[in-house]
Amino acid sequence: MDKYIENLRTKSPLIHNITNMVTINDVANIELACGARPIMAMAPQEMEEVTGICDGLNLNIGTPSEERFEAMRIAARTAQKKGIPITLDLVGVGVSRFRMDFVQSLLSEIKIDVIKGNLSEIKAVMEHGHCEGGVEVTDEADDAYIMKLACAVAEKFDCVVVITGETDYIAGADVEKEHVESVTGGHPMMKKVTGTGCQLSGLICSFVAANTDDKFGAVKTAMQCMKQAGELAADDMSGHELETERTTATRHHMIGNATYRDRIIDAVYRICCEPH
Amino acid sequence: MDKYIENLRTKSPLIHNITNMVTINDVANIELACGARPIMAMAPQEMEEVTGICDGLNLNIGTPSEERFEAMRIAARTAQKKGIPITLDLVGVGVSRFRMDFVQSLLSEIKIDVIKGNLSEIKAVMEHGHCEGGVEVTDEADDAYIMKLACAVAEKFDCVVVITGETDYIAGADVEKEHVESVTGGHPMMKKVTGTGCQLSGLICSFVAANTDDKFGAVKTAMQCMKQAGELAADDMSGHELETERTTATRHHMIGNATYRDRIIDAVYRICCEPH
Amino acid sequence: MDKYIENLRTKSPLIHNITNMVTINDVANIELACGARPIMAMAPQEMEEVTGICDGLNLNIGTPSEERFEAMRIAARTAQKKGIPITLDLVGVGVSRFRMDFVQSLLSEIKIDVIKGNLSEIKAVMEHGHCEGGVEVTDEADDAYIMKLACAVAEKFDCVVVITGETDYIAGADVEKEHVESVTGGHPMMKKVTGTGCQLSGLICSFVAANTDDKFGAVKTAMQCMKQAGELAADDMSGHELETERTTATRHHMIGNATYRDRIIDAVYRICCEPH
Repeated sequence: MDKYIENLRTKSPLIHNITNMVTINDVANIELACGARPIMAMAPQEMEEVTGICDGLNLNIGTPSEERFEAMRIAARTAQKKGIPITLDLVGVGVSRFRMDFVQSLLSEIKIDVIKGNLSEIKAVMEHGHCEGGVEVTDEADDAYIMKLACAVAEKFDCVVVITGETDYIAGADVEKEHVESVTGGHPMMKKVTGTGCQLSGLICSFVAANTDDKFGAVKTAMQCMKQAGELAADDMSGHELETERTTATRHHMIGNATYRDRIIDAVYRICCEPH
Repeated sequence: MDKYIENLRTKSPLIHNITNMVTINDVANIELACGARPIMAMAPQEMEEVTGICDGLNLNIGTPSEERFEAMRIAARTAQKKGIPITLDLVGVGVSRFRMDFVQSLLSEIKIDVIKGNLSEIKAVMEHGHCEGGVEVTDEADDAYIMKLACAVAEKFDCVVVITGETDYIAGADVEKEHVESVTGGHPMMKKVTGTGCQLSGLICSFVAANTDDKFGAVKTAMQCMKQAGELAADDMSGHELETERTTATRHHMIGNATYRDRIIDAVYRICCEPH
Repeated sequence: MDKYIENLRTKSPLIHNITNMVTINDVANIELACGARPIMAMAPQEMEEVTGICDGLNLNIGTPSEERFEAMRIAARTAQKKGIPITLDLVGVGVSRFRMDFVQSLLSEIKIDVIKGNLSEIKAVMEHGHCEGGVEVTDEADDAYIMKLACAVAEKFDCVVVITGETDYIAGADVEKEHVESVTGGHPMMKKVTGTGCQLSGLICSFVAANTDDKFGAVKTAMQCMKQAGELAADDMSGHELETERTTATRHHMIGNATYRDRIIDAVYRICCEPH
């Protein structure tokens, strides 16, 4: 893990994010936390220039708009021409034809470096269909099924694939065919914070941008970093609860999902930026 | 209160929010805190599909745009057709004809389940006019006046009406005619956090979506939940202050409106999601 | 400093912000923290009415769009006609012709009261050219150079100019020609939080709106307030670390950039709003 983080610290890559409106601030702060420098421009008029000076392009289709899709297309073309790595987060791809059509069209034109989604989103893209139940679906498929799916996506789109869930999976282009790994850890409360998935995408793009010679390793490290941050953040909160149990007034303070949201980003900062 | 919260926990309703750009993240997190699942899509192109799979539709006219108003209209029609409850937050309706015209047009076409605003916003809608002084107006009207107004709005639009202020009022369609109640509590510092009103709307929509057979009770519980969260959050901060008075360095930390913002959401989480 | 803060408390100016999508929530909360009342409307259709009732207009060109630029133009014209002070934050002006052309066009039509940027942004505007390296550039120029540049900008645009960096500089129209001052302080970690610059612009506009008879003094006080808040916030966190060193579990908690973000806003609240 240290090598990838060290590269982040040294290179401090500039990451162009075209992301959703819900978690845009958290994504910027988690990228700063890991050592990258975020820029969140989204006007089609300036995409060529902005993407052109960046080291990574992070696309996220949550809260889409016609204009933002157009911006993503221009940015992706620019990135492809210049060899800038591109990550794509399939947020809610199955909830509408609007999202699905854009993703299919983008994937048919542009070679994406990392595709990330939960099980239902990844399935929806592979089946060119709708996923039911909205953005969050409980992933009850067995390990073997998910692993096989990850490899199929990796082969079809010649990219690193991340399937998130209680356990995350990664399969990818840099390693031998059919190679897939799982990343465990994290904390159940991460589901109670909006945008932990978007934040992970920000980390992935940052790690890849600073470690272009080993994308699989970079993505895996970003996933491990996020899981570890979720655990550290939970430890912080429960540690604090123990300490403050002495006084009734403060017994519960800081126990909740809003505080936890900040603690996750704080933990990434400590993992990646704090002098050891 | 427990019954309504229990239903939220069991049903975990999917809430479609078309809300403003200032508080979109806080609204998502407070809905997660109360046990609901938020989705914040806002492109007209996907409104039919997104609203169609949701259990509640939360409209908020802060930071409006032509495109977002169009999205709201399509979403509202979809919700009405499918019997999905709709809440409408009249943020700053009196500051422009743009907002007022949209609201009047929407109300003339769609039956809204819950209309919420502060006194000047509600008055502006009833009088089809401008409110002076912008988005926040001190409510110096007497109780009787506000209660009468609430009943008039409830009757005119056949809906539950919430008028917010230091004391909140609720009047509504499910109960006997002219029935109005007040909800007290909260904390003065809630005014120093942007979007506590938007957050309340997120709670209201979530509670209603999980308790469609008793909308009045659901709305009232959401209001009580928010007031209680404001108090708990203030207790947390003052409790902490007391505890840390021993050391000079930490004496003041966490005393401020940004920390208080997170504490409110945390408190909702504890009220609704924490195992008791 | 007290006089300017006192005026903020008494007048509680309404500030119209047309700002970027990354930090819109933080800007609203820091304006509340200092005693102002924020409104963040951005639709061209309502700009005349919204700006017209406000005491200050804060323009920020981060995450621009065609529509938001149009809104800024209408808002700026309205403000100029009514004598409402205007601040302009040149976020990333050098990254694209889209931003640069808008800024040049705006400056040629409208008299801005306060122009703020980092060294590369200010240079880009003066040279009508591109700045390299994106939004954040290390400012390695010497003091004398920056001071001369600040005075040149102040004279050219007849306004107060703020050049931010490790040390901030202010030059301006209200004082004698060629007068420039520096504001030191703050904390290195402020660079690890997205939008501290946008937040400073929110403070500047609020202080100016409440102190229109002494814009130079108001801007300088806002700059000092932000630097001091950055220090207080860092003190809070390190104070807390010291206190909790006793227990292993809590040793690190709250040390990170997300928590620091909130602590800065909290500190502004304590400086400006807390009873002394």
